[in-house]
Amino acid sequence: MEWKRRDLLDLQSLDKEEIELILETAKSFRQVSTRDVKKVPALRGKTVALLFYEASTRTRVSFELAAKRLSADVVNIASSSSSSTKGESILDTALNLEAMNVDMIVVRHYSSGVPYVLSKNLKAAIINAGDGCREHPTQGLLDIFTVQEKLGSVKGRNITIVGDVLHSRVARSNIFGFKKLGANVTVCGPSTLMPRCVKELGVEVSYDLEASMKKSDCVIVLRLQKERQQEVFLPSLREYARLFGLSQSKLDKASKDLLIMHPGPTNRGVEIGADVADGCQSVILEQVTNGLAIRMAVLYLLLGTKELQ
Amino acid sequence: MEWKRRDLLDLQSLDKEEIELILETAKSFRQVSTRDVKKVPALRGKTVALLFYEASTRTRVSFELAAKRLSADVVNIASSSSSSTKGESILDTALNLEAMNVDMIVVRHYSSGVPYVLSKNLKAAIINAGDGCREHPTQGLLDIFTVQEKLGSVKGRNITIVGDVLHSRVARSNIFGFKKLGANVTVCGPSTLMPRCVKELGVEVSYDLEASMKKSDCVIVLRLQKERQQEVFLPSLREYARLFGLSQSKLDKASKDLLIMHPGPTNRGVEIGADVADGCQSVILEQVTNGLAIRMAVLYLLLGTKELQ
Amino acid sequence: MEWKRRDLLDLQSLDKEEIELILETAKSFRQVSTRDVKKVPALRGKTVALLFYEASTRTRVSFELAAKRLSADVVNIASSSSSSTKGESILDTALNLEAMNVDMIVVRHYSSGVPYVLSKNLKAAIINAGDGCREHPTQGLLDIFTVQEKLGSVKGRNITIVGDVLHSRVARSNIFGFKKLGANVTVCGPSTLMPRCVKELGVEVSYDLEASMKKSDCVIVLRLQKERQQEVFLPSLREYARLFGLSQSKLDKASKDLLIMHPGPTNRGVEIGADVADGCQSVILEQVTNGLAIRMAVLYLLLGTKELQ
Repeated sequence: MEWKRRDLLDLQSLDKEEIELILETAKSFRQVSTRDVKKVPALRGKTVALLFYEASTRTRVSFELAAKRLSADVVNIASSSSSSTKGESILDTALNLEAMNVDMIVVRHYSSGVPYVLSKNLKAAIINAGDGCREHPTQGLLDIFTVQEKLGSVKGRNITIVGDVLHSRVARSNIFGFKKLGANVTVCGPSTLMPRCVKELGVEVSYDLEASMKKSDCVIVLRLQKERQQEVFLPSLREYARLFGLSQSKLDKASKDLLIMHPGPTNRGVEIGADVADGCQSVILEQVTNGLAIRMAVLYLLLGTKELQ
Repeated sequence: MEWKRRDLLDLQSLDKEEIELILETAKSFRQVSTRDVKKVPALRGKTVALLFYEASTRTRVSFELAAKRLSADVVNIASSSSSSTKGESILDTALNLEAMNVDMIVVRHYSSGVPYVLSKNLKAAIINAGDGCREHPTQGLLDIFTVQEKLGSVKGRNITIVGDVLHSRVARSNIFGFKKLGANVTVCGPSTLMPRCVKELGVEVSYDLEASMKKSDCVIVLRLQKERQQEVFLPSLREYARLFGLSQSKLDKASKDLLIMHPGPTNRGVEIGADVADGCQSVILEQVTNGLAIRMAVLYLLLGTKELQ
Repeated sequence: MEWKRRDLLDLQSLDKEEIELILETAKSFRQVSTRDVKKVPALRGKTVALLFYEASTRTRVSFELAAKRLSADVVNIASSSSSSTKGESILDTALNLEAMNVDMIVVRHYSSGVPYVLSKNLKAAIINAGDGCREHPTQGLLDIFTVQEKLGSVKGRNITIVGDVLHSRVARSNIFGFKKLGANVTVCGPSTLMPRCVKELGVEVSYDLEASMKKSDCVIVLRLQKERQQEVFLPSLREYARLFGLSQSKLDKASKDLLIMHPGPTNRGVEIGADVADGCQSVILEQVTNGLAIRMAVLYLLLGTKELQ
């Protein structure tokens, strides 16, 4: 199988084989970051622009290191210091980057759909690094990769995603990705934070975290975006933590093999207990390591493909 | 002809041959950015500091990519995150950079004359990336380069510069550059935004855009610096747009070969119509592409020269 | 002698031989920055993260250039644009960097002790680039290096440190370092800005700058951190300048060979006169040059060591 797309906008439109190709490619890149010389010449002379309109450390740095370890040149553009303060639209900014022969634009934006607008108007490769409440495909891919590495397979596994499913681009990418590879996905959270038609995505809905955990191989705990929450969605953080926070006492009642994942950064004591986040069932930092490998794979596949066009 | 200056501070003091040497050099660099491996080793081991005291995306990224495609090392210093918040003067900052053996400082500053102060006090090469209302020489060079590429020659061509000529460093650099290469330059705009002694620069003055367009080969539309405008200069944006905005209806009355340029970012619907900016006579994005080539040429010529000193 | 530590957290815990090894290594690196090609492949494929939670130009750029001239890959993380705005702790951020196989974290933080917390929890090499009022070891090292270069030796030399000793991490690193190499250190400043138990560090205390200068080979003028000062510590800046500012008139009464140093950025007219800062006894810019060599040496020693582990 060969990669044919120019962009990575979401997992919704990828098919199983495409996802598997990315996972396979990531496997071979993971060891690059453990070498003494963490660098391969694959993208030498390519230019990657990181266009981030929302604050981010881990995702931005992960893409930056992925590009640099592939020997690409990288430019960082954050919204605060850019022409966006002059009122320039992101499409204008992106068209300018393309006019400078930038090969790839990695974009994070608070509005859903921005990566699609760029993709329609540009020839450069576009990677969605998170758009509004829509998708965050490389996060989905690294979560799938982590489950596959830790449990040996994804097919038939039971995955629970718990938290603010309504606002979560991570949840959406995970639902699409895990379903395509044959996992069973349950979403769990307060009814005010559950999308109305979520069952149409082929998932089960639960309002009881402990019950869901008992049937699961892996729980993905979503970050409670406190900075985005309206008061209307939540009675109180304490109440949320009591019902849907993954505490050690809830974990004690589940299987010892249950895998705990979180996209980070964690709100310890809210959606996850500090002891759980740092405990031996948590693979949060392995997710970060795998994320770099996934991003190297995606950069490599997209810019390799472009060559052939 | 050989390049002899250490700095690029303005176009006012360059002679025709120097400008032509930069244009000639840019021509040979332009194809580097279209290669599969967009990188040449010309400036390997050189250090270029980008010292930007005003928000900028395209100019900063253009210089950054120019330096990186020449294999130089680049450091970014933006005023907000730098010691300027500690009250350090830009000259102190620049002297410190020089003490770290930085070879070149590309500086943008809101005060006219800053690049000259640095040039007088430093041995490092200085490039003016825009100083107050004074000059923006690489913008002037890329505009000249674009006219030459599109129209075959600059000499004898009729260029109209329309807009806020009073506050525009782009206008000044363009006037100096185009005049030296033998073009006829007309400046057009409301009388409140016209410098008092502008005719001494050897230009014609017009207050009628449509009339100027009829006699022109190229119109350079200036950005209306809304963030800098005092209320006193303009009655209203709508009035400005009606009289001096380059709308499609004005364009329809001019020659189909009239070239439309703009330094970006555009205020669509104010100084230029969206349909004009995106239309087939507009070469705005080609200007961006040419800007990168011009900057590569300037970096190469300046740091090459320094070698010989 | 061989370097054995994984981190550089302070000068307090280094022994004389370790400091001398860094100075020796810096000597050999200093000429790299004067070459035509300012680059050696020593750290090719290594990743260095610069994690700065306080505004900084010179220290950040100095580390960035040190890393780049050693061919390492560098990522910048400033607190304002990072996940710290999402409430993520610096330890979480650092653990994430480590999970991405970052080899070294250079950290500046407003809280004393942060580098120690990182060191205890991480396997990556940690360099303290200034923590609260505690230490700034590479500044101490570059000051020692500069004295050694200018005066031929450190042992037996008389060093006066003048200013806000109480809040100064530079003062503390200098006291520890100079004492270990056998210099006599006097601290001088208003009694309100003098740590209570400062004599226990083995220094003399003076409240008379002119008298101290007469007995000194070198005066290190501390920056008055106006942005950190509480009104309670100082009667007025003018009073401070009169008593403890190093003015030309005070300098005229001292030896012509007295060396004047300052960690920068200077408050001219406050703790140092503009004519003194720019005068022929000042070696402020040489300190900056030496700082880059010291940082190259430290990066090289730490990442070289890690190899062997």
